[in-house]
Amino acid sequence: MDPKKMSVLDYLNQGNVLVGDGGMTYCLEKRGYVKAGPWTPECTVEDPDAVRQLHREFLRAGADVIQAFSFSMDDKTIDDQNEEINQAACDLAKGVAQEGGVYCAGSICQTASLYAEGAGKECVQKRFEEQIQIFLRNDMDLLIAEFFEYTEEAEWVVEILKSTGIPSAITMAIGPFGDSHNVPVGECAVRLARKGADIIGVNCKFDPTTSLRTLVMMREALDREGLNCHLMIQPVGYHTPDAARTGFSSLPELPFALEPRTLTRWDVHKYARQAYDLGVRYIGGCCGFEPYHIRAIAEELSSERGFLPEASKKHALWGEALKNYPKEWVRNRANRAYWENLEPATGRPYSSAVSRSDGPD
Amino acid sequence: MDPKKMSVLDYLNQGNVLVGDGGMTYCLEKRGYVKAGPWTPECTVEDPDAVRQLHREFLRAGADVIQAFSFSMDDKTIDDQNEEINQAACDLAKGVAQEGGVYCAGSICQTASLYAEGAGKECVQKRFEEQIQIFLRNDMDLLIAEFFEYTEEAEWVVEILKSTGIPSAITMAIGPFGDSHNVPVGECAVRLARKGADIIGVNCKFDPTTSLRTLVMMREALDREGLNCHLMIQPVGYHTPDAARTGFSSLPELPFALEPRTLTRWDVHKYARQAYDLGVRYIGGCCGFEPYHIRAIAEELSSERGFLPEASKKHALWGEALKNYPKEWVRNRANRAYWENLEPATGRPYSSAVSRSDGPD
Amino acid sequence: MDPKKMSVLDYLNQGNVLVGDGGMTYCLEKRGYVKAGPWTPECTVEDPDAVRQLHREFLRAGADVIQAFSFSMDDKTIDDQNEEINQAACDLAKGVAQEGGVYCAGSICQTASLYAEGAGKECVQKRFEEQIQIFLRNDMDLLIAEFFEYTEEAEWVVEILKSTGIPSAITMAIGPFGDSHNVPVGECAVRLARKGADIIGVNCKFDPTTSLRTLVMMREALDREGLNCHLMIQPVGYHTPDAARTGFSSLPELPFALEPRTLTRWDVHKYARQAYDLGVRYIGGCCGFEPYHIRAIAEELSSERGFLPEASKKHALWGEALKNYPKEWVRNRANRAYWENLEPATGRPYSSAVSRSDGPD
Amino acid sequence: MDPKKMSVLDYLNQGNVLVGDGGMTYCLEKRGYVKAGPWTPECTVEDPDAVRQLHREFLRAGADVIQAFSFSMDDKTIDDQNEEINQAACDLAKGVAQEGGVYCAGSICQTASLYAEGAGKECVQKRFEEQIQIFLRNDMDLLIAEFFEYTEEAEWVVEILKSTGIPSAITMAIGPFGDSHNVPVGECAVRLARKGADIIGVNCKFDPTTSLRTLVMMREALDREGLNCHLMIQPVGYHTPDAARTGFSSLPELPFALEPRTLTRWDVHKYARQAYDLGVRYIGGCCGFEPYHIRAIAEELSSERGFLPEASKKHALWGEALKNYPKEWVRNRANRAYWENLEPATGRPYSSAVSRSDGPD
Repeated sequence: MDPKKMSVLDYLNQGNVLVGDGGMTYCLEKRGYVKAGPWTPECTVEDPDAVRQLHREFLRAGADVIQAFSFSMDDKTIDDQNEEINQAACDLAKGVAQEGGVYCAGSICQTASLYAEGAGKECVQKRFEEQIQIFLRNDMDLLIAEFFEYTEEAEWVVEILKSTGIPSAITMAIGPFGDSHNVPVGECAVRLARKGADIIGVNCKFDPTTSLRTLVMMREALDREGLNCHLMIQPVGYHTPDAARTGFSSLPELPFALEPRTLTRWDVHKYARQAYDLGVRYIGGCCGFEPYHIRAIAEELSSERGFLPEASKKHALWGEALKNYPKEWVRNRANRAYWENLEPATGRPYSSAVSRSDGPD
Repeated sequence: MDPKKMSVLDYLNQGNVLVGDGGMTYCLEKRGYVKAGPWTPECTVEDPDAVRQLHREFLRAGADVIQAFSFSMDDKTIDDQNEEINQAACDLAKGVAQEGGVYCAGSICQTASLYAEGAGKECVQKRFEEQIQIFLRNDMDLLIAEFFEYTEEAEWVVEILKSTGIPSAITMAIGPFGDSHNVPVGECAVRLARKGADIIGVNCKFDPTTSLRTLVMMREALDREGLNCHLMIQPVGYHTPDAARTGFSSLPELPFALEPRTLTRWDVHKYARQAYDLGVRYIGGCCGFEPYHIRAIAEELSSERGFLPEASKKHALWGEALKNYPKEWVRNRANRAYWENLEPATGRPYSSAVSRSDGPD
Repeated sequence: MDPKKMSVLDYLNQGNVLVGDGGMTYCLEKRGYVKAGPWTPECTVEDPDAVRQLHREFLRAGADVIQAFSFSMDDKTIDDQNEEINQAACDLAKGVAQEGGVYCAGSICQTASLYAEGAGKECVQKRFEEQIQIFLRNDMDLLIAEFFEYTEEAEWVVEILKSTGIPSAITMAIGPFGDSHNVPVGECAVRLARKGADIIGVNCKFDPTTSLRTLVMMREALDREGLNCHLMIQPVGYHTPDAARTGFSSLPELPFALEPRTLTRWDVHKYARQAYDLGVRYIGGCCGFEPYHIRAIAEELSSERGFLPEASKKHALWGEALKNYPKEWVRNRANRAYWENLEPATGRPYSSAVSRSDGPD
Repeated sequence: MDPKKMSVLDYLNQGNVLVGDGGMTYCLEKRGYVKAGPWTPECTVEDPDAVRQLHREFLRAGADVIQAFSFSMDDKTIDDQNEEINQAACDLAKGVAQEGGVYCAGSICQTASLYAEGAGKECVQKRFEEQIQIFLRNDMDLLIAEFFEYTEEAEWVVEILKSTGIPSAITMAIGPFGDSHNVPVGECAVRLARKGADIIGVNCKFDPTTSLRTLVMMREALDREGLNCHLMIQPVGYHTPDAARTGFSSLPELPFALEPRTLTRWDVHKYARQAYDLGVRYIGGCCGFEPYHIRAIAEELSSERGFLPEASKKHALWGEALKNYPKEWVRNRANRAYWENLEPATGRPYSSAVSRSDGPD
């Protein structure tokens, strides 16, 4: 079934699962096109080939949604170019989405400080309206409001999203301990659902395990209230069992020494299965999710989706292509049980398992 | 100074350092274009944009040499296409090398089994001659013979390389315990130098720390014998303190769970400095080296080379671009001492530091 | 102030803190006098010198209470000797307590299966009455009911204890998740306090960190209800962050490979301080607490208690006696900051930080 | 066969193995009778019961030799009492050895600084002669010269020991890298054997694994030279893979945070077997070896020795006494394969596997 033959919501309402894409920012940083610190997307103008290539890799890996690599937050760093950069982002994302016959999404974030400093509903909503204009002009299939830390601000953005008539999602950047105003996770989900949000979930800040715990709490609260809406998850691609309430920025390793925490493809298989079994139907990744991680989601859910992604042409399931390897001891690894049960060593005798976070708790 | 204005050897003889590129195979596997197991480079034909993009990223990161992504070993898997695939590999590598004004290299490997099964010098050398034809036709700047496990076979290939008149390098895939016939590391280097090898070193199989120990032994033996030749190193991008004699394939995590072992950029800084201080003047990476790792070599050696790579436009040295980050606890990480001293946690409480290798020792 | 000049309760009511003793069973197992598995105390008859010596070491380390090493649970293993063994236990404990002018305690446990199999209040209480007879005959200063997993059974034993007129304590072997019938920790404490328990707390099963979390919950619940009673803690001497609900028996390392989890004396300092600050006034240890761990409690609380224990004659606070060590690098360790901040390496590269418990959760 | 019916050397010459005792100093420190820092044995006078009890525990655990707890090194700390303390040490050790019908040993160490500061052979040997007088007067069965770091000083003490006519042993406190004057391990052993040493080996400073590597080198060198003498090993009871050349004092955890490194009894089984298989016939322990560790040596070698030690009455081999444990998941641990294969978790998520030693390397 070709997702593009119907709206995102119709597609989900028919019981299908959407595979999201991965983390553009972190991935392009490692490739040399995004600067850690400002993390701004000017490469959509400066190096469009590099951005397009990564979009294509996510598409090839099985992503059903290509998210434009536009500015997040109401960022002023290179303000006069924002319009040009975001238009280039839309062009690149739409181009690749059309190549693959998948959805294209535009996304906005919580305000950098407007809400937190008390600007009030009218002012904050006006900012959201400004931010989504470009996505309306570009006829996006989906609007995603993400990285929200406050339930109230999220309610306000849902109102704006709903007013557009375009399918939309709201994802909170919160963990099991609740939002930044101590609103419990369950209450947050219920309030957003009551505002009519189509898709509710979490993104960034925590690893799959922690994010799934948050989603379980959302799901239970929605069920208790008899509310029904689609669930979405886009966690970071790093193990963060030790992240403080503020999320993985509290880890001393962020952003330049997160390597040992990187998920394996097998970690992602497990995550995708657990998310699916919980009823989540929009399953993707955020910072740290590389193309092969997205492929692992698509491979884990290939029977549910009915197909393998393009990139699986270059990947045998569960390491089976090792079975002809010239070295016997490597051939022995060509099976599912091996990789499912392996607890990978870290190669780092001077490293501890977890860190003491240096962020506020 | 533009390296391309003189031959590779003249460039090195003037005391310059060459930054190598990283690991095409592993990197393209994660991007979805190479299949783990066979590890063959048919994507040069199937998806040339993806290959070109990665070459460009290594160039942008500071590589002085772009190595064609051709077949390694005398691989028969997709034999009839080899010629086409390797020609595409040369075209892609040369194209990018010319864009950047850097060197382009062709590479061959030890025979898969000819030598080991006793085929004899004439037969083995004939194979080498066949393999290098395409690089001669494509006018490569450098020929690299790599992944050699036997000193004698390496001596034979050096003879062939020398006969071409093209600058060449020979890198052994061995660790401190010697070659696969128990020839000690020092003796190996001396024998290769006596054959007239221009550049001698190690590649793949072991991490920077182990590879540097091997090079120290090579260097000491060469010095003892009064032999003079350039040294080269291209280790894997993973910490492998526990690798058996057969190298990192002996680690249970190869190839699908090596993530926790991935080098950070700071690990690479340290490696580049140690290699340089040892007198190594061709410093690159093999499997697991991504573009940002190569950039770290170029940044560490920027004063020696006299310039920063293009990709440093998107990277502040030692995390300094974090100094304006909105979160105070992240701003505190914007300095060299922080990253040099950080021992990153692994986020993996169920993982051990090292593995018991399952390969032969 | 000599504790023995007043009853245990008067002593506590005056605001004093009692230091408990450590784990007789585990300690005597390592010394060769108790058999792991049955864990029975027949050595009080067979090797009284060994038992007396360990009592003396705990006394010397600062224990204010010496607990008789009698049978725990309603154990039938060597039934006909029970009386003789328990009388010897009382004689040994009282003898040492009198040498030191400290309190002597007798202890009983939950029924092995009577309660759990539904024997009913009358039958269970009859068993408790039988068990305490020997302690009544021996004129103990304190009766401790410990290792209780069910709040209701604990309530029943409190009734029996109260009826004796002797000061008594009830300690639950439960963690933060509640008792074995899912009674929450706070409710458990409140119910015991309402039965008139003099001293309430936890013992065994979990490490200091986990046990303190349980006690925080008890304390908060008691405070909410305006109930006032003394708090007691006797955790195991092993780090058990990964213990399942059933406690440290769920750890694969119990009982013969717990060594890497052993508390350092500095871990105990921290524990003693946290317990004291929480308002706990009976602070001791259970399995794994050796004499030097008890000394660490006494040293941490020396200003509150007004004296150092006898064993501190052979221990300089915070490693200060290293300051004259012949090796300079060891002398540098002769200070409090060094030991407080040291995160000790494990020397075990093949070990993980935590285990997957194999007990029920 | 009762060892005491013949001399130590006759006993060894008949092919028997001797089990040594464990570490008095570290063990008595934890019990409260020895002060870390000076580590002096005045408790032989102050608290003889505590010393006797520990001797008895080692005897009970299977030790064939009880070593008097006298002053080591030419210590001046409490000089005027030395004679009294050492006589008490001899009385205690001999008393317990006679109870068990085992050997009693006196021991001396290298000079604290005489040799290192160049005092010369005559002066150094005079000191050794003074030190052994008390053991000659007390008619010891064996003289042990231990903790030697210099081969030459060890040769000098061997001359003195030989002159007494009493069986004697010389153990070096060195690792695989040679003595403190860079004399290689093999040469050291050969020189001592040529001086006529009866028993040669290593003690203290390194763990069993490292110490066994040293002994392998000694053994190979002795074999090459056709020299024949008995081998002895008494390593520390802690895993020290990361110890620098100066031994375990280089580890930041010494002496107050070594707990996570403590050997399990199963580690000791493996060690005892490896030592025996290497031909070592005096197998004991040094700092950190507790009675249950010595029992593990005796149990591992019970078929070679023909009996189990007394303490095995309270220990079922390989955890078999757990088979009746009330909890099923613990009963499953009642077998040899379980304990032999268990890699114990550390319970310490903030700890690394190894330390950077802070001693000289």
